[in-house]
Amino acid sequence: MYRDHTCGDLRESHIDQEVILCGWVQKTRDKGFVVWVDLRDRYGITQLVFDGDRTSKALLEQARNLGREFVVQVKGKVIERASKNTNIPTGAIEVLVESLTVLNESKTPPFTIENNTDGGEDLRMKYRYLDIRRNPVKNNLIFRSKVAIEVRKYLSDHGFIEVETPYLIKSTPEGARDFVVPSRMNQGQFYALPQSPQTFKQLLMVGGLDKYFQIVKCFRDEDLRADRQPEFTQIDCEMAFVEQEDILNTFEGLTKYLLKEINGVDIKEFPRITYDEAMKTYGNDKPDIRFGMEFGELNAVTQHKDFNVFNTAELVVGIAVPGANSYTRKEIDKLTDWVKRPQIGALGMVYCRCNDDGSYKSSVDKFYDQEDLAHWAKITGAQPGDLICVLSGSTNKVRAQLSALRMEMAVRLGLRKANEFAPLWVVDFPLLELDEETGHYHAMHHPFTSPKPGQMELLETDPSAVSANAYDLVLNGNEIGGGSIRIHDTEIQSTMFKHLGFTPEEAKAQFGFLMDAFQYGAPPHGGIAFGLDRLVAILGGQETIRDFIAFPKNNNGRDVMIDAPAPIDDGQLKELNLKLDIKS
Amino acid sequence: MYRDHTCGDLRESHIDQEVILCGWVQKTRDKGFVVWVDLRDRYGITQLVFDGDRTSKALLEQARNLGREFVVQVKGKVIERASKNTNIPTGAIEVLVESLTVLNESKTPPFTIENNTDGGEDLRMKYRYLDIRRNPVKNNLIFRSKVAIEVRKYLSDHGFIEVETPYLIKSTPEGARDFVVPSRMNQGQFYALPQSPQTFKQLLMVGGLDKYFQIVKCFRDEDLRADRQPEFTQIDCEMAFVEQEDILNTFEGLTKYLLKEINGVDIKEFPRITYDEAMKTYGNDKPDIRFGMEFGELNAVTQHKDFNVFNTAELVVGIAVPGANSYTRKEIDKLTDWVKRPQIGALGMVYCRCNDDGSYKSSVDKFYDQEDLAHWAKITGAQPGDLICVLSGSTNKVRAQLSALRMEMAVRLGLRKANEFAPLWVVDFPLLELDEETGHYHAMHHPFTSPKPGQMELLETDPSAVSANAYDLVLNGNEIGGGSIRIHDTEIQSTMFKHLGFTPEEAKAQFGFLMDAFQYGAPPHGGIAFGLDRLVAILGGQETIRDFIAFPKNNNGRDVMIDAPAPIDDGQLKELNLKLDIKS
Repeated sequence: MYRDHTCGDLRESHIDQEVILCGWVQKTRDKGFVVWVDLRDRYGITQLVFDGDRTSKALLEQARNLGREFVVQVKGKVIERASKNTNIPTGAIEVLVESLTVLNESKTPPFTIENNTDGGEDLRMKYRYLDIRRNPVKNNLIFRSKVAIEVRKYLSDHGFIEVETPYLIKSTPEGARDFVVPSRMNQGQFYALPQSPQTFKQLLMVGGLDKYFQIVKCFRDEDLRADRQPEFTQIDCEMAFVEQEDILNTFEGLTKYLLKEINGVDIKEFPRITYDEAMKTYGNDKPDIRFGMEFGELNAVTQHKDFNVFNTAELVVGIAVPGANSYTRKEIDKLTDWVKRPQIGALGMVYCRCNDDGSYKSSVDKFYDQEDLAHWAKITGAQPGDLICVLSGSTNKVRAQLSALRMEMAVRLGLRKANEFAPLWVVDFPLLELDEETGHYHAMHHPFTSPKPGQMELLETDPSAVSANAYDLVLNGNEIGGGSIRIHDTEIQSTMFKHLGFTPEEAKAQFGFLMDAFQYGAPPHGGIAFGLDRLVAILGGQETIRDFIAFPKNNNGRDVMIDAPAPIDDGQLKELNLKLDIKS
Repeated sequence: MYRDHTCGDLRESHIDQEVILCGWVQKTRDKGFVVWVDLRDRYGITQLVFDGDRTSKALLEQARNLGREFVVQVKGKVIERASKNTNIPTGAIEVLVESLTVLNESKTPPFTIENNTDGGEDLRMKYRYLDIRRNPVKNNLIFRSKVAIEVRKYLSDHGFIEVETPYLIKSTPEGARDFVVPSRMNQGQFYALPQSPQTFKQLLMVGGLDKYFQIVKCFRDEDLRADRQPEFTQIDCEMAFVEQEDILNTFEGLTKYLLKEINGVDIKEFPRITYDEAMKTYGNDKPDIRFGMEFGELNAVTQHKDFNVFNTAELVVGIAVPGANSYTRKEIDKLTDWVKRPQIGALGMVYCRCNDDGSYKSSVDKFYDQEDLAHWAKITGAQPGDLICVLSGSTNKVRAQLSALRMEMAVRLGLRKANEFAPLWVVDFPLLELDEETGHYHAMHHPFTSPKPGQMELLETDPSAVSANAYDLVLNGNEIGGGSIRIHDTEIQSTMFKHLGFTPEEAKAQFGFLMDAFQYGAPPHGGIAFGLDRLVAILGGQETIRDFIAFPKNNNGRDVMIDAPAPIDDGQLKELNLKLDIKS
């Protein structure tokens, strides 16, 4: 036994006990005849004292020579601290050291191991093992493991069985790019790493295991946007003999449970809106509803007033930004520039100040009188003191632009509060999206998603009008889960593949085993998958996932700590029957 | 809601209730005016009755047309069963069906969905989703998930944090072959899939997370022996500030807990033997100690008796097979042939019957008298009624041969009882093995394993004599876990790499990040990894792991259900900067 207590254990009740502690030297204060050392481990910090009056010169000297991050073992007696530190749980005591063993020395770390480090992102990633010693990162990892424990507890308690599905599977052309794994034993052939265990969980339903879940790594070889990882973790779930309502209830239950157990937050029923409503009201299929600023469509009250911009626009839509009527002309001009940036792409912005006296002042007073503007205020829900921001253009574009503005204003106004949680279900997603280039449809969710009941004929006559039995769970403006009721009928599945541009042969080659399986008594089934990385980050009150992952990769998909990926030697390539084919 | 009860729910207390059930048609018995259907789901079987007296003709006709494995929903009333079936929990009742909906039809399955199926291994693997409907496979998967739950519970309760380590890592030449993953974003470079999270868990220890575990998939591209899988699951664990004793105690605790919770078996302290003792006593480093037949070395009592075979042998060693003195001459000849098979490789076998009257009859009576044979009996622990089997030859070979014979006799005598559990620790493994071809040493456990305290100098002077702080946990003749105390000192690690034949440059290229990490305050640490597939199979009282894996691969590493691996298209190869290089 290297230790009998941790650095987070000791309290006043331990005074006079002899203890053995191990840990890292956080810092040393040398006051000549007394040396204090803060000793840190996973559990906390304990102050060590080396006192010239009560200890040998040699020991004092030893303490004096300790460097930052040295690993030490100390034996000593717990004593009361003269000046207590009420900021830490061990602040009432210190350990009067009687002997000290240096277990390992340390070079000076490249950044400080403090809550607020002086290390930048790159340095922290290269020395991630040191970064993990810092409280914020360490606590995130512990938090993540706690969330996973609670997820497993809830699902197990509700009859779900965790089943491990394979990682070495088959490449499919649908969706994102697969990572592939050349097979040595099967010349010229490749496994693929799963983008999700989708087909396997459906096969488990065919196999009768009617409640499945798995916390599982998934892989996508995509060009990485910020805050995406090539490998990520899903809470993958599937149920048989269920309708959409059963799935929503079950996983609303899970999410409520997590919010309660992890965050101590009680949330009643989650609101539900359709995809169409979400797009109309928030311009976004994952709206943040911690705050209002709902869209008001103004076409009816802006037309035929000689303002050509609005007259010719497919959509004129505004939001009332609370308390922003105090924005100066200059501030509003800057905001207009912000929406005109290429990332947002608006052509301009019309505004209307809602004065405290109930009158209005807009940038288009030439065209609209007070009565018109009062209509705007009514439709956008603006109160005196608010600023109405109006964008116009083609429907899809202007919704996206106004959504971006809505989020930006929420950030500026401090409305995106990390400790406030506003979940909602978005339902009735479109089944298919038309790819204008190929003329084929893409599955909006995935190719196994069922159309809504009663829309079967529409699938033949007007595929893009078909709604899916598909749903997303949104939390604070992030999609944290999504799923669907699946097709369990081989013929409907064939029709889907046809619309997705697969020939029957291609469908058979890629998904033949699933279509075969469906001929042997597939039950009605559906499921959902949560992105664990994102879920954990949001529950943890943060926006980025990277610090909730022990060893993340950078935006080039590299692990800079271990320096991977890396070249492999020719022998390995040869065994795999491969040659490099590098374009210079 | 498709159902309000499962097929395992209903009892006499439900009589007269209206219920809705869903499931698969297990079988139909048509007695003309009455049709019985066994309806199956994950939870059990419920008997449905369609009675011409109490039901419409149309419904009776519908029931009559149900095929095996049709998926149906029925509504009906729970009634008492005339002749109760005490073999199943629902055997007291049946459901008088009032309406029936076929949710999906089924082709006739390629094998029967019964406990004892008529499907062979190949067919079962191809239609694994049907195989999973069978109780034995389904129950294994549920059993596996239960074991995983208990493992997580125990480790969490003991302060371990589950941390997910990356799957896309770096290839290392040490040990078995890696599966590699070509990187599209990093031309000509490859990730590797982890053979274990070894280096990452050590880095987590450097990072101060002093108790880590993970249930994690690992990958080895080896030529597959029977009952090995290219992807397998480990319970991977590591602790800091521990000595070997702490690790053994912690994971003995885990194993006891599992045996108690899963199997209801109380086991006191696990025996410990050294590697040398295990080899001497059982000829094997993973001895099955559910039975005796310990080796007795007979050199001292067999020399100088004119029997040249023994005189010239490095080792003469025997076991007393209990109650086997009744073996006929013919049976013994067959046993001798068995040990002479090429897989075993013995040159012959000497036997000695221990007669019930206390006298002996051996195959070498010409050389050994009753007094000599009494010595043999004493040393092997033979009793009247036993058969002593003696092999001779070079030490390592003859031990392996006699170990094989010992296991074979245990099987024949029914001593390997599935519901009996005999764990033990094997400790003090050799640190290094000499590779006679290259003249280099291989790490017996892995290159990060620490020599035993006080053997540091020996590492320079006589590397092969050094024992390691390495240990295996053996259960019923299977290694279920293995681990070691790690080197946490950069210099000792460098010495190790030198003995393993790495140049400093190679060591730096492969393990530089780990050696770097060790310079920043690495704590003393060690760990263990359990093979979950094997552990679950043994706790489940079975020898093969395949039916405890939902979707296993065959001996060629193929998933015959999804037909993977498979060729990928040229576009994919091109994006990865690869060309096939097939030898014809």
